[in-house]
Amino acid sequence: MSLHPDRLFSPDPTQRDIARRLYAEVAGLPLISPHGHTDPSWYAKDEAFPDPAALLIIPDHYIFRMLYSQGVRLEDLGVPRRDGGPVETDPRAIWRRFAEHWHLFRGTPTRMWLDHTFETLFGVEERLTPASADRIYDRIADRLTRPEFRPRALFERFHLEVIATTESPLDPLDHHRAIRDSGWQGRVVTAFRPDPVVDPEFDGFRDGLQALGEITGEDTHSWRGYLAALQQRRGFFKQMGATSTDHGHPTAATADLDPVPAVTLFETIVSGRFEPQDAELFRAQMLTEMARMSLEDGLVMQIHPGSFRNHNPTLQREFGRDKGADIPTRTDYVRALKPLLDRFGNERDLSVILFTLDESTYARELAPLAGHYPVLRLGPPWWFFDSPEGMLRFRELATETAGFYNTVGFNDDTRAFPSIPARHDVARRIDCRYLAQLVAEHRLDEDEAAEVAIDLAYRLPKAAYKL
Amino acid sequence: MSLHPDRLFSPDPTQRDIARRLYAEVAGLPLISPHGHTDPSWYAKDEAFPDPAALLIIPDHYIFRMLYSQGVRLEDLGVPRRDGGPVETDPRAIWRRFAEHWHLFRGTPTRMWLDHTFETLFGVEERLTPASADRIYDRIADRLTRPEFRPRALFERFHLEVIATTESPLDPLDHHRAIRDSGWQGRVVTAFRPDPVVDPEFDGFRDGLQALGEITGEDTHSWRGYLAALQQRRGFFKQMGATSTDHGHPTAATADLDPVPAVTLFETIVSGRFEPQDAELFRAQMLTEMARMSLEDGLVMQIHPGSFRNHNPTLQREFGRDKGADIPTRTDYVRALKPLLDRFGNERDLSVILFTLDESTYARELAPLAGHYPVLRLGPPWWFFDSPEGMLRFRELATETAGFYNTVGFNDDTRAFPSIPARHDVARRIDCRYLAQLVAEHRLDEDEAAEVAIDLAYRLPKAAYKL
Amino acid sequence: MSLHPDRLFSPDPTQRDIARRLYAEVAGLPLISPHGHTDPSWYAKDEAFPDPAALLIIPDHYIFRMLYSQGVRLEDLGVPRRDGGPVETDPRAIWRRFAEHWHLFRGTPTRMWLDHTFETLFGVEERLTPASADRIYDRIADRLTRPEFRPRALFERFHLEVIATTESPLDPLDHHRAIRDSGWQGRVVTAFRPDPVVDPEFDGFRDGLQALGEITGEDTHSWRGYLAALQQRRGFFKQMGATSTDHGHPTAATADLDPVPAVTLFETIVSGRFEPQDAELFRAQMLTEMARMSLEDGLVMQIHPGSFRNHNPTLQREFGRDKGADIPTRTDYVRALKPLLDRFGNERDLSVILFTLDESTYARELAPLAGHYPVLRLGPPWWFFDSPEGMLRFRELATETAGFYNTVGFNDDTRAFPSIPARHDVARRIDCRYLAQLVAEHRLDEDEAAEVAIDLAYRLPKAAYKL
Repeated sequence: MSLHPDRLFSPDPTQRDIARRLYAEVAGLPLISPHGHTDPSWYAKDEAFPDPAALLIIPDHYIFRMLYSQGVRLEDLGVPRRDGGPVETDPRAIWRRFAEHWHLFRGTPTRMWLDHTFETLFGVEERLTPASADRIYDRIADRLTRPEFRPRALFERFHLEVIATTESPLDPLDHHRAIRDSGWQGRVVTAFRPDPVVDPEFDGFRDGLQALGEITGEDTHSWRGYLAALQQRRGFFKQMGATSTDHGHPTAATADLDPVPAVTLFETIVSGRFEPQDAELFRAQMLTEMARMSLEDGLVMQIHPGSFRNHNPTLQREFGRDKGADIPTRTDYVRALKPLLDRFGNERDLSVILFTLDESTYARELAPLAGHYPVLRLGPPWWFFDSPEGMLRFRELATETAGFYNTVGFNDDTRAFPSIPARHDVARRIDCRYLAQLVAEHRLDEDEAAEVAIDLAYRLPKAAYKL
Repeated sequence: MSLHPDRLFSPDPTQRDIARRLYAEVAGLPLISPHGHTDPSWYAKDEAFPDPAALLIIPDHYIFRMLYSQGVRLEDLGVPRRDGGPVETDPRAIWRRFAEHWHLFRGTPTRMWLDHTFETLFGVEERLTPASADRIYDRIADRLTRPEFRPRALFERFHLEVIATTESPLDPLDHHRAIRDSGWQGRVVTAFRPDPVVDPEFDGFRDGLQALGEITGEDTHSWRGYLAALQQRRGFFKQMGATSTDHGHPTAATADLDPVPAVTLFETIVSGRFEPQDAELFRAQMLTEMARMSLEDGLVMQIHPGSFRNHNPTLQREFGRDKGADIPTRTDYVRALKPLLDRFGNERDLSVILFTLDESTYARELAPLAGHYPVLRLGPPWWFFDSPEGMLRFRELATETAGFYNTVGFNDDTRAFPSIPARHDVARRIDCRYLAQLVAEHRLDEDEAAEVAIDLAYRLPKAAYKL
Repeated sequence: MSLHPDRLFSPDPTQRDIARRLYAEVAGLPLISPHGHTDPSWYAKDEAFPDPAALLIIPDHYIFRMLYSQGVRLEDLGVPRRDGGPVETDPRAIWRRFAEHWHLFRGTPTRMWLDHTFETLFGVEERLTPASADRIYDRIADRLTRPEFRPRALFERFHLEVIATTESPLDPLDHHRAIRDSGWQGRVVTAFRPDPVVDPEFDGFRDGLQALGEITGEDTHSWRGYLAALQQRRGFFKQMGATSTDHGHPTAATADLDPVPAVTLFETIVSGRFEPQDAELFRAQMLTEMARMSLEDGLVMQIHPGSFRNHNPTLQREFGRDKGADIPTRTDYVRALKPLLDRFGNERDLSVILFTLDESTYARELAPLAGHYPVLRLGPPWWFFDSPEGMLRFRELATETAGFYNTVGFNDDTRAFPSIPARHDVARRIDCRYLAQLVAEHRLDEDEAAEVAIDLAYRLPKAAYKL
């Protein structure tokens, strides 16, 4: 299959023609990537990617979770075991296994992203099959050895204006410093992701607290010192380019405790003898503390709650975190966000971007909240919903109540670097498709739709994330 | 943008042509407005509306919530403060501020309603922009001075067959009496909305109870007297034209207590020393009491639960209720309605119309309940979902299980009088669009679809509300 | 209305043409019916169906629930009362009453199924109306007397390759034995539905336990004996052709108790002095026990939770179970299934098929779970959602995360034998429609879509149910 110029547009000729015109306005705009998980060392070291499997399969949990669901062992895909036990090390064998199961991805965004990557990045135009697997492997492997396929060259080729990575407060940001010092013009910023030192149930939380103290010189075992340490690290991150923070809690719970119970709670947490509800309350309180600091230092706050992390304990024991077993859960926003909103909801100098994995809240809770509170904006469809149908549902469900201008455009949220252009392209196409429908149904004039298309693709993310 | 005759129809030519034919059958039918919040004094006094801002912006929380969400102060839109503090008083300045932010409404129903109102009511055909704002303001202001723009003239121009307003049991209904006594032929009826004297957490509940006693001569501090007073007021409302009651509780909870615990609960409520769960149980019990009275006096019962009222305490303190900060919440119906349904669900002489703000219940709970229980009917998509996409989702989600004939057609639920024709027009167009799709997909014959279109636009609301 | 060859396809010419081609690939494939509720005595005895009302109306709760919702008494439709009180016995009178209310089914799947049955099975081409009711009745009644309308002839005419019925562990499966012994080639298998002896709140549970002991010779009042008895009956069902078990619990709760608390819980249940939460925990534990046995004996496990059974106590008292008053409820899967998944989720030799009545979980919970856990597959849209819009939503919501190959194709789940071809036809058309859209939007090549269409219609159900 080769990429069709009208892909993802409505097949209805009226809508398709409008979508084409709108897309022509945005197809060439630079990419703003305000939230993602690419490895900053790639840009710092600018080394060649090793091989097709290491680049495209082994680190991509979208891919290996689907294969795993159909009985393929992670060992056979080269995913490293925590115990160092044997796993497949031949990238070509991994690639062939992947090709044998390519049909599983029919109808999924992974299929679209990879088709796009194969064709536009590696010039592969034949379909991946067991028969073509070796040819395609060889072609990609060959390309990866070339200088124009190094990370910085790709960054420029992708027309990335800026990309944000995501780091823990404990990260020294050496790679970001190296990028800055290198004289390379590509703009790579960090984002402040404090979960490891803010979530008492995060693996290694206590060690993190200790380390945070050592890095900052603050007494992180006192409430005051702990907050000061976080504030200091936020300052450091901001200095290194960060414009945002990022918070991935199990729920959207927020709290606004008085000083005395806040101290007591912190002491319970630090003691290590806490109940799950203490951890939940502490995370809730910390979101409000982070909002307070954001009001001071101007970092945009991103909250994306509702994932049940590491749902599969066997897999976690054998392979570790982030192996495709994070499952979305039903999430409440109306009650959960109220303590934070009661305190900061009417601020004009604070910006809180909400993402969700619970689509039933788009129209019921999130759009009504974002269509009222000055601090709130809606992030794009997240993760599983970063897909053609998912994006379309988001616009259909959120726009009528929140409008376009309480949303912040797309982010790719990915560690799959080569897929970044494909992902932004899908988002731009779907937004143009949605706008084309509004125009074709005489709900919006085409000149206005064109302005909105550009806003969604470029201006809104740039403004919302202060990039 | 000028109104396109095919707006909101599918752009697919087959569906569009069918939709046109269906719409031609209903476009000219009189409007039935069985549920809304226009001010009866308008029809009683028949005075000119003061100015464009006072008519279209200041009272419309759809409009000012969106502007507020983007940082516009309510004071700058002329919304009165509770402390009497200064707010913008120049209607033209308010209008200009509104025009500057008109792009925020792209893709929203507010935009469609106002475009329709501007063009069909005021003859405005240019788009609202900062440049055109003054011209449009002047044109509307001029029209408002003319006799044909007085409320009664508009009522007739809108082809309203009947409109219902909504009043508290404490309301003397003087305006309704004045309308009746005036000899004017327009039919304006009231609806009985007892929330202020039935919800213990309603502002002023205790004073309301007192007033209810004074109006009725009943001892409203005894359970028996309280029920008798409500029954008496229902009788009075019915005499003044009411055909329905209207109940806006936080949840859909109903209860069916035995007499002794019911008395005890009432005494706890009257004492003022009650917990939130007592208030919830009392509201729940009162829905069942209201159903019992409806079975006796024939008033149709409307229940629309699930809004978290006044979510923003700062705003409520400064500007009062109903300022755009009511947020929908997840709502259960299957368990909540059971006590009422256990007692009255199989009655053939009782009619309970359910509205919701939780669309996830359309297909899962509401359509299955309404497709079984004789007393239940489904009201139209409510509030935020009174929109093209919202209405379409309602039909797609509810029809297959409840059919069309367990729904009751449209109501505009609005206090924005000039928008009434626009709102009914959107509803009629979307229903014709949905029916056209069924016909185009050979799921329904066109002659049947035409009959359904007329039922939805006219016959069903007239029958369901006994109008 | 006569059946249109393009019914249910998109009216857009591009999509319609692709859908036609895809449908041509699957229209003639044999039917696999892996889950349903037809009466095995029909196939065993092969007697003529008595009359149109007894065949099409009296046993179909889709039909009489809709009529009941609009005030028609069940007595007037010939539904037998538990007290043996008088009900309509004239099938023609029932049929006329049904015809008078035929408009209620506009837009519902019942309408589509019956139109299909009338035309393709009975050669009726005129619309059902009060005027045509007698003619149509006579025609159907005449056909039912003919040998080619006996159950076995219909089975063959329907091109059924295999049909599964559903029986209690207490059922001796005499009809299945008779079918097998008859020499008839039609393949009718059973499915093991243990709810009556596994759900302590099922009517007659204690008697069932007793009977289970008598049938198996096990002491079913000891935990060990009870489990052995179930295992034995599973073996017997398997021997009689069963390839699956079927579990219809109120929630998806699973548990994995240690042996000692499991025994204690069982003893509480057997004592009859248990609380609702004990019953819930027992059902939860039993799902995990059933999974364990499935891993041993290879029976595929079907779980379809989330129905609030017999919601209408008056109706249940007067007419019994299964009278259209089962109402879906909100259902959690992420937490509920975890105990079972923690223990068996990574098995490659166990297959658990999940159905739901809570569509809000398709994209949020079920597709992510099935797209990860090797044991999980997604069953088709269930019951109220076994409808054109319901099936389309399922594909739109589930495919992007779970793909097609973690779904198992269609099942008709019906006791309405004549409607089986209509139901499979709707499913095949909707799947082709969905695939045609993917092709028309250049998200999938047409040759791949054709392969998927055949997989969904035939290969996947055959494989998933081991048929």
